[in-house]
Amino acid sequence: MKHISLMGATGSIGTQTLDVIKQHPEEFRLAAFSVGKNIELARKIIAEFQPELVSLAEKNSADMLKAEFPGITFTYGQHGLTEVAVYHRSTVVVNAVLGSVGLEPTLQAIEEKKTIAIANKETLVTAGHLVMEAAKSNGVSLLPVDSEHSAIFQALQGEREKNIERLIITASGGSFRNKSRDELKNVSVTEALNHPNWAMGAKITIDSASMMNKGLEVIEAHWLFSLPYEKIDVLLHDESIIHSMVEFHDSSVIAQLGTPDMRVPIQYALTYPDRLPLHSSNRLNLAEIGKLHFKEMDFERFHCLKLAYEAGKVGGTMPTVLNAANEAAVAAFLEDKISFLQIEDLIESALEKHNPIYHPNLAEIQEIDAETRGLVNSLL
Amino acid sequence: MKHISLMGATGSIGTQTLDVIKQHPEEFRLAAFSVGKNIELARKIIAEFQPELVSLAEKNSADMLKAEFPGITFTYGQHGLTEVAVYHRSTVVVNAVLGSVGLEPTLQAIEEKKTIAIANKETLVTAGHLVMEAAKSNGVSLLPVDSEHSAIFQALQGEREKNIERLIITASGGSFRNKSRDELKNVSVTEALNHPNWAMGAKITIDSASMMNKGLEVIEAHWLFSLPYEKIDVLLHDESIIHSMVEFHDSSVIAQLGTPDMRVPIQYALTYPDRLPLHSSNRLNLAEIGKLHFKEMDFERFHCLKLAYEAGKVGGTMPTVLNAANEAAVAAFLEDKISFLQIEDLIESALEKHNPIYHPNLAEIQEIDAETRGLVNSLL
Repeated sequence: MKHISLMGATGSIGTQTLDVIKQHPEEFRLAAFSVGKNIELARKIIAEFQPELVSLAEKNSADMLKAEFPGITFTYGQHGLTEVAVYHRSTVVVNAVLGSVGLEPTLQAIEEKKTIAIANKETLVTAGHLVMEAAKSNGVSLLPVDSEHSAIFQALQGEREKNIERLIITASGGSFRNKSRDELKNVSVTEALNHPNWAMGAKITIDSASMMNKGLEVIEAHWLFSLPYEKIDVLLHDESIIHSMVEFHDSSVIAQLGTPDMRVPIQYALTYPDRLPLHSSNRLNLAEIGKLHFKEMDFERFHCLKLAYEAGKVGGTMPTVLNAANEAAVAAFLEDKISFLQIEDLIESALEKHNPIYHPNLAEIQEIDAETRGLVNSLL
Repeated sequence: MKHISLMGATGSIGTQTLDVIKQHPEEFRLAAFSVGKNIELARKIIAEFQPELVSLAEKNSADMLKAEFPGITFTYGQHGLTEVAVYHRSTVVVNAVLGSVGLEPTLQAIEEKKTIAIANKETLVTAGHLVMEAAKSNGVSLLPVDSEHSAIFQALQGEREKNIERLIITASGGSFRNKSRDELKNVSVTEALNHPNWAMGAKITIDSASMMNKGLEVIEAHWLFSLPYEKIDVLLHDESIIHSMVEFHDSSVIAQLGTPDMRVPIQYALTYPDRLPLHSSNRLNLAEIGKLHFKEMDFERFHCLKLAYEAGKVGGTMPTVLNAANEAAVAAFLEDKISFLQIEDLIESALEKHNPIYHPNLAEIQEIDAETRGLVNSLL
């Protein structure tokens, strides 16, 4: 029986993690979880899973639920998130929060030797060197939950790192894959939120449309698999069926495929190195799909991806700036304050103005993160 | 340094095995090999690789070469083939001979605890139960060389057997994949030998056109991976880029891909569980290929595959009959004695007439094999 701490229970990854836990009551128990402001859903999750510890965004929500569920411990805020991450009964922490708030709790959980199932890109993008160092020195496994990284991780089972020629991360191209740069000038938020293959949260759907999502994944892959950027390629693949691939130096390529269903990589992170049946998942039927399409990535068309490779190669606090500027810009786009293409302009301005710190510590990362958000907001 | 015995050095798999050995002189040494009647090529291989033991089909060829290469031991015939297989210095035997002559030497090599790299389908098709039992009781690894089985074997690295949902063996469809059954009536040998993706020997190219090759592979997979026929599917895939796949019960699918190059699976069998760089192999470029196509298998159109599943499910000596009838019928087709569709008619007649022996021993298999060939030849 694995006791699980779930950071971010009400988001897209969070609810699908709950579905996986529910399918295997003899294997998994939800020991602790955090939510933001969705109290209604939190109440349902508590009633169904009977966890021991719950953290909410705000104190008054915590107090309210405490009155309703007297047998359960409630906490709140950033400190509460960390309490969930380091909860003594849990051996696995699923980090499914959005944005950089997940970073510090994850580092704390690593110190407590918890296995980390990581769905939060920002943790590795902004502090990959700290997280990987901590994981290594504590002998902790970092298991990817993103479909692309899970695909690579699955493809690498039984293989040796030295034999890797390159990773091939696939990209659907997002909502605007059939639009030219010119057509991108006037796209709306509603159009941007209409992803062809995956139902995900708003932020990541916009990131898919701008290809920044793939950029963050490239940086994440760099850290997770300890490979230089030269060995990480991105390939356009319309159908999101091949979730990613690894090419070895004998020219053999191992790929992981499936219908787009995040519960598969989530469950793999929870069952690794074993697998369990996953019911109600749509099984892959390639004959029915008929064709899989592939196209070379266009770095001019998808400028954000180029910026991500550049920031990643410079390293230090550059990816922190990339990520923070992107979060601020995407938020502004979602609020209709800027146009779609201004997202990349704002990120580029922030990167150009930044003088990177190499090997930053956590405080420096957090400072640069806040500074960058301030800068982008001042440019709106 | 691995010392290798190569059974069938001058065939398609044989010469590509030599190419792999040549690329890694610090890893592999050709200790012994057998050839059929291609004395000219045998002479070149001896001069280049300086093996210790060589077996030829006939005594007079062996005597002739003995005079030319006094430092090397020569032998001949079926007994010579076994001497190559059990050669004391070799730890790995590559079985790349055609037809059922490879069976007995392989069983002998297993008794001598040699690792077997198996490219010879008939060994497993006609005597899978004997070979697997012997491998198990001698703790010997059977490593597949066929691109499809190697793909499955690679996809299974780091995985657990209990989690396998099914194997998906891909099939290019062979030379006649775009022809209807009606159009198949009058196809010529030359047309049949024109495979769209792979340059292979004549027998296997005809088997690809009739889909019997896939049928033999299904039976081989049944033995190699200890799975019932219900868990082995065949999928039409034009491009021969995905060499085969494994679906697990969590609905995740692992596939092995590459350009069609037999040296990749050959080398993998020799380096397993490690990999080595393979030079001069065309690396996979999916963007250049653009599309991969998939279609459901049509068992009416490809009647031989249906016969193979049926024979495999009955078991016992049925697959021996299937294989022997096919070998005799294909030989007759290649000699222009019968039409293409008569191949399947002859196999079906042989299967219908046969009263299977369950758990046959080697002598019974050999007897049924010879009887079946006689029967088919009598029907020509």
